[in-house]
Amino acid sequence: MRHLLSTSALSREDALNILDTAEEMSGVATRHVKKLPTLRGRTVVNLFFEDSTRTRISFEAASKRLSADVMNFSGKGSSVSKGESLKDTVQTLESIGADAVVMRHWASGAAAQLADSGWTDCAVINAGDGTHEHPTQALLDALTLRRGWADRSGEALRGSDLAGMKVLIVGDILHSRVARSNVWLLRTLGAEVGLVAPPTLLPVGVETWPVTVHYSFDEALDTAPDAVMMLRVQAERMGGSFFPTVAEYTRRWGLTDERMARLEARFDGVSTPMVLHPGPMNRGVEISSAAADSVQNRVLDQVANGVSVRMAVLHLLLSGSRAAEPAAPSLPHSADRFSTGSSA
Amino acid sequence: MRHLLSTSALSREDALNILDTAEEMSGVATRHVKKLPTLRGRTVVNLFFEDSTRTRISFEAASKRLSADVMNFSGKGSSVSKGESLKDTVQTLESIGADAVVMRHWASGAAAQLADSGWTDCAVINAGDGTHEHPTQALLDALTLRRGWADRSGEALRGSDLAGMKVLIVGDILHSRVARSNVWLLRTLGAEVGLVAPPTLLPVGVETWPVTVHYSFDEALDTAPDAVMMLRVQAERMGGSFFPTVAEYTRRWGLTDERMARLEARFDGVSTPMVLHPGPMNRGVEISSAAADSVQNRVLDQVANGVSVRMAVLHLLLSGSRAAEPAAPSLPHSADRFSTGSSA
Amino acid sequence: MRHLLSTSALSREDALNILDTAEEMSGVATRHVKKLPTLRGRTVVNLFFEDSTRTRISFEAASKRLSADVMNFSGKGSSVSKGESLKDTVQTLESIGADAVVMRHWASGAAAQLADSGWTDCAVINAGDGTHEHPTQALLDALTLRRGWADRSGEALRGSDLAGMKVLIVGDILHSRVARSNVWLLRTLGAEVGLVAPPTLLPVGVETWPVTVHYSFDEALDTAPDAVMMLRVQAERMGGSFFPTVAEYTRRWGLTDERMARLEARFDGVSTPMVLHPGPMNRGVEISSAAADSVQNRVLDQVANGVSVRMAVLHLLLSGSRAAEPAAPSLPHSADRFSTGSSA
Repeated sequence: MRHLLSTSALSREDALNILDTAEEMSGVATRHVKKLPTLRGRTVVNLFFEDSTRTRISFEAASKRLSADVMNFSGKGSSVSKGESLKDTVQTLESIGADAVVMRHWASGAAAQLADSGWTDCAVINAGDGTHEHPTQALLDALTLRRGWADRSGEALRGSDLAGMKVLIVGDILHSRVARSNVWLLRTLGAEVGLVAPPTLLPVGVETWPVTVHYSFDEALDTAPDAVMMLRVQAERMGGSFFPTVAEYTRRWGLTDERMARLEARFDGVSTPMVLHPGPMNRGVEISSAAADSVQNRVLDQVANGVSVRMAVLHLLLSGSRAAEPAAPSLPHSADRFSTGSSA
Repeated sequence: MRHLLSTSALSREDALNILDTAEEMSGVATRHVKKLPTLRGRTVVNLFFEDSTRTRISFEAASKRLSADVMNFSGKGSSVSKGESLKDTVQTLESIGADAVVMRHWASGAAAQLADSGWTDCAVINAGDGTHEHPTQALLDALTLRRGWADRSGEALRGSDLAGMKVLIVGDILHSRVARSNVWLLRTLGAEVGLVAPPTLLPVGVETWPVTVHYSFDEALDTAPDAVMMLRVQAERMGGSFFPTVAEYTRRWGLTDERMARLEARFDGVSTPMVLHPGPMNRGVEISSAAADSVQNRVLDQVANGVSVRMAVLHLLLSGSRAAEPAAPSLPHSADRFSTGSSA
Repeated sequence: MRHLLSTSALSREDALNILDTAEEMSGVATRHVKKLPTLRGRTVVNLFFEDSTRTRISFEAASKRLSADVMNFSGKGSSVSKGESLKDTVQTLESIGADAVVMRHWASGAAAQLADSGWTDCAVINAGDGTHEHPTQALLDALTLRRGWADRSGEALRGSDLAGMKVLIVGDILHSRVARSNVWLLRTLGAEVGLVAPPTLLPVGVETWPVTVHYSFDEALDTAPDAVMMLRVQAERMGGSFFPTVAEYTRRWGLTDERMARLEARFDGVSTPMVLHPGPMNRGVEISSAAADSVQNRVLDQVANGVSVRMAVLHLLLSGSRAAEPAAPSLPHSADRFSTGSSA
């Protein structure tokens, strides 16, 4: 694994390797000194052509926790033509000493173009490209789901997948890179995926995806999902041509108190239904305020898991000698690899 | 002490503890390696809903000198509603790993709301909230005043307060969080406080404050102040309804050459009058250029003391195990606690 | 050497010292841990009154590679009057703990004014001031040229200069601080300098400079240059009063495929002509796309050399005790001074 561009191209082995490594990384947060020396002397550049403070800060925290140097480069507002500027920018960053480029770009496919072009030896991490993919978001969702799934099954976490889990993704699938990355990764990990959306918010060709499509949230709940992933309704799409009104959207595709009660009814009270949301939540729109409060802790787990997943990805891509590792990622490292040591 | 929200709620013991710790911290600046390992692995987030490069950089320097990781998060221009966004933002930062949030907010009371809400376990440091408080500014002013006061009295610095010192605060009290934080802290430390301002720039209810109010700077100087604290006249208030003209403001409430001479006349030439200003100074407006030059060094002392005070606050709030320290701050640490050690 | 303000005031000894130190610094990039502990505890502030992401990131990378703390301060958009604000800003930064200020300013002479004023004890590094100088750019160009020149001559790199080398600088000399800094440094190092530009893009008084002026690129190529330095045509000057059209500029002063072929014809195929460009290149304007591709690696060498040169400058200005070093820089340090050590 030289880059992380998408979940569609991520093998089951690589995905599990990232998740297992992320589990080890999450232990660092509980230490007295919450740092690993792993990437000391390595440089990570956050190259963001679109604003995304949350994602940028999460990568920044992950890099710093691994002792890497981080530099933020905002490409927003740059007027130069896409292809050339990206090549020039990234080659410049590499010459300055970047080992990895974490890129958020408004153009679908930008990260893959960069990685496939031969323009750079930097590791490229896709932090969201247009409506295409956002692989670390899907990985942090998978880390969150896997913990819940393993809890219920009693299975050991390490190496486990999501075989047999039923996950609904609800909302604006059309514009969502989060939904796309989740579909591919959930399938790779063995989950059954249902999509719930108004027809206007489903992409052309969705019938070829390995999912079940529901137009009614209520009917979808009849399938007894183990987890529900709510997508954020973007403000700029409310009241547009995609759905009649916000109230109508909420009534038909929102996680209302009633739907939350139906979800909870299937559980024994010890385990609880898994409701995920990439945040920030629009309370009263795609999720009721009571449902939001009841799942708030899990949403924050997702945020914390985001740092662990990004530490894992940076560690797997950057640590060790690149020359010595041909193409496949190394096996998950054992926990004692991560001792801070007194010289860190 | 779990947070630093205001000086009005700061006990004399906590205030002296911060000042004594700041004195120890100021010694770090004179070392060959100007860093302490105290907060290695801790994360400080500067969450600024208003621009303030000076305050942000001062906290950033303080954090880095203590070896903490720092991330800057500009909330400016965010259009989301205040309550929800603040809760959501801070909980996200905590999940990402923030141990302390240094917050500048345009709304009076924002920091207290955050700390009292139970939304977060992060230490909250108020870096200015509306026209309410700016406690680290008052603490750096107190550190500066205490040094001058102890010099004159020959008293030992450690544990000393400002008992008997007469301090005038001059200018736009109405809009000044700096003035408010100073009034409460100066009173807690035993100083006598006089306010000097045009009636239009005094807040409603000032008669209930533990201060003497003067409308004339010249009459206030008759009270033989030991220190004068000039406030900055904000450009947006010049020529408005608050005072007739800038020239008139200067003539009546500015520290002119004549008033500077009167101040200096009381001193023996060995010690000098203490004139403070939070900076940057409007030369020719609230302070004459000659007076500005004569007090420039003290204004820069205030800036340097700002880093020491912020190091002290971060150290007291973040070092040591939170669980083991119930509510009160630990006593000031002895200097040898701060050795850099070879592993830093 | 207390500051780096210009190449016009840089002695041959200081210039060679910087280049030799930069050669040592460039070795750090090949280590497993690409960091030196040299400037741990020192603080570098990037004070940029104009945007320049490339230069800012290069200094930031150089500072971090030397383990300094870096803070970025954008002075852009500040409306305060130049002299006062600069004094106030820099004295504030020094009080906060800055050891060096790297300044980009829109006003020619700003860095020198700052250094000569006695306002600050910080080391001042000019990162570009108006149309005046950009000394680290010239030093990185010299580092790049010296490697090529020593390769051809077989001379040892250390201590060598550019004696006898013929360098053409082509383009908008009038507005270029890069051109000015290069002219002075190249002459100091013994090179012969030719300028090639339309008469409208040459400064008044160029006839007093120690250079040969050519209005025709083709005639200039008859002088058998060893290196050609292409300047970027700024978009805001295209189509203005400086030259008729972009196509005309390219036809007469661009490095076209034909001119590139003429340049290459002089070389034996083992060594290649040195073409430098400060980047980013306007392909199809001042350089043809094929020429750009053929020199791209050297342009990226320049970027990498920029980090080495800036590390050298920061190291020479900041390491060691300032008091003990009166005025002249220390001799180049031997490589073993730069061991990272286990405690870094």
